[in-house]
Amino acid sequence: MKLAMIGLGRMGGNMVKRLAGGGHDVVAYDVDAAPGAALAAEFDSVSAANDLQDMIAQLSAPRVVWVMVPHQFVDSTIAALLDAGMEAGDLIIDGGNSNYKDGQRRGCELAEQGILFADCGTSGGVWGLKNGYSLMIGGADAAIALIAPALTTLASNDGKGWGHVGPVGAGHFVKMVHNGIEYGMMQAFAEGFELMKAKDEFDLDMHQISRVWQHGSVVSSWLLDLTGDALEQDGDLSSLSDWMDDSGEGRWTVNESIDLGIPTPVLTLALQMRFRSREKDAFAGKIVNAMRAGFGGHPIRPVSQDE
Amino acid sequence: MKLAMIGLGRMGGNMVKRLAGGGHDVVAYDVDAAPGAALAAEFDSVSAANDLQDMIAQLSAPRVVWVMVPHQFVDSTIAALLDAGMEAGDLIIDGGNSNYKDGQRRGCELAEQGILFADCGTSGGVWGLKNGYSLMIGGADAAIALIAPALTTLASNDGKGWGHVGPVGAGHFVKMVHNGIEYGMMQAFAEGFELMKAKDEFDLDMHQISRVWQHGSVVSSWLLDLTGDALEQDGDLSSLSDWMDDSGEGRWTVNESIDLGIPTPVLTLALQMRFRSREKDAFAGKIVNAMRAGFGGHPIRPVSQDE
Amino acid sequence: MKLAMIGLGRMGGNMVKRLAGGGHDVVAYDVDAAPGAALAAEFDSVSAANDLQDMIAQLSAPRVVWVMVPHQFVDSTIAALLDAGMEAGDLIIDGGNSNYKDGQRRGCELAEQGILFADCGTSGGVWGLKNGYSLMIGGADAAIALIAPALTTLASNDGKGWGHVGPVGAGHFVKMVHNGIEYGMMQAFAEGFELMKAKDEFDLDMHQISRVWQHGSVVSSWLLDLTGDALEQDGDLSSLSDWMDDSGEGRWTVNESIDLGIPTPVLTLALQMRFRSREKDAFAGKIVNAMRAGFGGHPIRPVSQDE
Amino acid sequence: MKLAMIGLGRMGGNMVKRLAGGGHDVVAYDVDAAPGAALAAEFDSVSAANDLQDMIAQLSAPRVVWVMVPHQFVDSTIAALLDAGMEAGDLIIDGGNSNYKDGQRRGCELAEQGILFADCGTSGGVWGLKNGYSLMIGGADAAIALIAPALTTLASNDGKGWGHVGPVGAGHFVKMVHNGIEYGMMQAFAEGFELMKAKDEFDLDMHQISRVWQHGSVVSSWLLDLTGDALEQDGDLSSLSDWMDDSGEGRWTVNESIDLGIPTPVLTLALQMRFRSREKDAFAGKIVNAMRAGFGGHPIRPVSQDE
Repeated sequence: MKLAMIGLGRMGGNMVKRLAGGGHDVVAYDVDAAPGAALAAEFDSVSAANDLQDMIAQLSAPRVVWVMVPHQFVDSTIAALLDAGMEAGDLIIDGGNSNYKDGQRRGCELAEQGILFADCGTSGGVWGLKNGYSLMIGGADAAIALIAPALTTLASNDGKGWGHVGPVGAGHFVKMVHNGIEYGMMQAFAEGFELMKAKDEFDLDMHQISRVWQHGSVVSSWLLDLTGDALEQDGDLSSLSDWMDDSGEGRWTVNESIDLGIPTPVLTLALQMRFRSREKDAFAGKIVNAMRAGFGGHPIRPVSQDE
Repeated sequence: MKLAMIGLGRMGGNMVKRLAGGGHDVVAYDVDAAPGAALAAEFDSVSAANDLQDMIAQLSAPRVVWVMVPHQFVDSTIAALLDAGMEAGDLIIDGGNSNYKDGQRRGCELAEQGILFADCGTSGGVWGLKNGYSLMIGGADAAIALIAPALTTLASNDGKGWGHVGPVGAGHFVKMVHNGIEYGMMQAFAEGFELMKAKDEFDLDMHQISRVWQHGSVVSSWLLDLTGDALEQDGDLSSLSDWMDDSGEGRWTVNESIDLGIPTPVLTLALQMRFRSREKDAFAGKIVNAMRAGFGGHPIRPVSQDE
Repeated sequence: MKLAMIGLGRMGGNMVKRLAGGGHDVVAYDVDAAPGAALAAEFDSVSAANDLQDMIAQLSAPRVVWVMVPHQFVDSTIAALLDAGMEAGDLIIDGGNSNYKDGQRRGCELAEQGILFADCGTSGGVWGLKNGYSLMIGGADAAIALIAPALTTLASNDGKGWGHVGPVGAGHFVKMVHNGIEYGMMQAFAEGFELMKAKDEFDLDMHQISRVWQHGSVVSSWLLDLTGDALEQDGDLSSLSDWMDDSGEGRWTVNESIDLGIPTPVLTLALQMRFRSREKDAFAGKIVNAMRAGFGGHPIRPVSQDE
Repeated sequence: MKLAMIGLGRMGGNMVKRLAGGGHDVVAYDVDAAPGAALAAEFDSVSAANDLQDMIAQLSAPRVVWVMVPHQFVDSTIAALLDAGMEAGDLIIDGGNSNYKDGQRRGCELAEQGILFADCGTSGGVWGLKNGYSLMIGGADAAIALIAPALTTLASNDGKGWGHVGPVGAGHFVKMVHNGIEYGMMQAFAEGFELMKAKDEFDLDMHQISRVWQHGSVVSSWLLDLTGDALEQDGDLSSLSDWMDDSGEGRWTVNESIDLGIPTPVLTLALQMRFRSREKDAFAGKIVNAMRAGFGGHPIRPVSQDE
């Protein structure tokens, strides 16, 4: 099939490569002209677009446009696509990390103009190019039918890695929960490894253990595989900070748990331990120490002896 | 009544003062002679003992001895008391912060020699001297009857502040749970104050809020009172470290929750946030970051950019 | 001073009584005419209004109107007040449990018409009538000055129980955090009491312990006082469900923690244990059991043997 | 090599089969004669022992005996082995789910008699027979050398699935942490699936999602594979209880976290949610409701309206 890809960063660029390798024709566009030109040079089936009008002109109706831009630029990209000539019957797919509620709103707005919309959550990271992605897509049947051949190519395992999980919004909802679970799993491994590292008397080899577990144990997983790779290079991970960032989906998952009144203690704590990792002089600790000094008997470490 | 107090630190010393002020005769002993001499000089009804033999000689059967020493010295103190001449029918009270299981063991061992034992948990800190303590005591009725007049003096509010809560072990068990709850309450306040302090747009006055809440709100409590006192002196608590110590009872509470299979998520998290406060470069965070770098897309802060 | 009160439910009605008892003139209005008539009959300084026009007519500029209605009716009440003739220079106070962001929006909208707005968080429950409330109010100085005499009467301890904590929004923000802390404290007590009740070997008396702790211990608090009152009537609380409701502020507190990136593990868990209490057949448990059956060795309890 | 296996339950029996299939000679013993007879009938290289004396007589020094019995029977089995004639230089391996501290004690006790000891944690469940186990073993080099050929056969992937992780105790310590992590991962998945199931508007297909995620997503893992298998049979898991059991290692992990002062919030909460799943009428909830009724305004659901 033929489709356009907007946004040629690491994710979008890799997806163009995988699509081209799978026999699809791709019109590639990015605000930076360089990656599109490079992709067009590498693949006969890829052409670069100069701007959105050019991109749309290279497609024939019903046009299929995959948007792979940071979530704060999705709305402006969709607006620009409408200005550039997208028409009723065309399909826009948001493949980034949007909040599912934004997807629902976008779907409604585009439907008023007869434009199809689908929201696709994408997991697989930098390994997706080689191994295929895991894709969760939401939208009407007619929308999914238009993009299905590309999804089958993008997905891992001959297309087993994608699923039409529900109406518009469902794709990013499922991806959001996926990431929430991911946070929980990562924190579980992190706590376990920290506990083992703290057990000085056994002088355990973190890398060795990660490998033994990867062969036949209940915790074997892709995350453990990645952990083993990192520990192989540096068993102390001494070059890494312990400051943990987050990219939004974990927060949305907890907010959803609160909206639905469903307990998610482990997913929540995994997120909050990331917040905690960023604090260097927590007021909470000072409050506790103020109370302990107040009711007495507990000598409080003054700030100067902190290390 | 007449009793002996072993251990004249802040807690034991204050208790002697309160007992003497309440009309009791106290034989005071400490490995350091100074505090006993000072108390004897201050109160006619207090005499200092030179050693445990002297202390026991100053009591008449049935002797009542209150042990107020750090928990690691309780066993050796009891052994020394037996050597020094404690006899069947006498009573030993452990008033420190012992694990209740140690109290049960001690009670059994002493019972074999006919010596009564009671375990008394004491709350109230440095304010107990003035306001009276809250005392939870475990032991046989005969044991509690021997010490009851002293308990009534030590307790706050004309004796309302003490209770015979059960058999030997029950006193320290109830005190242990008390401290577990205390951890949870302290952490609840700490999190709330931290959240308010982080809300820059409102520029909230922590001290003012602590005082408003203390008058008529649902969270009014002694801990809030102490917090307000500390915030009055320094609204930023800038002289205090955020490194939170713990003194054992919180750990025992969580261990008990695990033994009984009873969920205590809040008490547990309050304890674990104390552990977290002591970590300066947590391996757990590095493990999470190693995974994030592995599946890609997430730039990881190198250790050198940590601040 | 003279002011109007809209909403004469338990909270609003009690506040009218306390204001009248403090020498203020109150115009009382509710969609139900009965409570206003009853208050007017009881207090000379209270008059009932037939409708909002009548209410406004009974006030002279600058008019002060306290709105004490469920949060979903605040917007419609304000709209009706504008229709009924509120003018530039008048003051509207939202004294209910609104989200602080709604207060900020309302403040902006009313400011465009020159009408002053203040948001007041109120704690104290049914005890406020007798003991005075704890009141946290946000707004401009000019707004607070208009309502200050009434606040001093409503508050506990000769006015110590109220504070002007910041600009519009700050009042409900501080009240929101107050309730988040309240959730944490309640859960801490709940876990501790459950742990003690589960310790069969000591056969502890929950009521006795709640009273001993209330006299001089570190956990003494109003919440413990209330717990003791309930346990006095029924030590097993056998007439109460374990299904825990929540009223919104706890959720908002956790959402705020996520917005600000501040860890609040204890406040969060307290909320989520309320959610958990409402589940009777949790899918989460079934998922865990499906895994345990899958990797083997763990016999899974079929649903029919559940009790 | 030749070794004996004591305990022919599901785990021990499967291990004998895998050892026999790998060319080893096994003397099989169980208190129940049937499984040993069956194994001996199936494999030429397996012989059944009538009792421990017979078993030992069938081995030549240095004898290697693998103990695979419930942890409460390990001490009595070792005692019986000593009575039956185990000698200095022989090796006993505890392959069950013992606490690592018991292993350390056993290692010390056996060392006094010159008998080697190793503690081996085993993961892989019922799938180990076919796919090989993941084995973490602790002990002296001399001990591990004696058993290494059998470990290579038992382990998955041509022996990659076993590791000599440290001295005696280290094997069960690492397995304990493995299981702690397993609890956290399982709870993370459970919370995520529950959240998706509660999102009625999307009517999500749990089985479909588990399969899509298994192909290329970050959360792909053996546990997810097992979840997908279960959901394939019954998307609602309606035949399963939500009552979650635990087998001890999760508790030990949290106790270790407390001993070491290392925060493990996610592992801890995963365990405590299992405890919570077993409560049908939690006193904690009643305490919270008693307070809510006390400070007023909150109607409390009486026990009779519980559903």
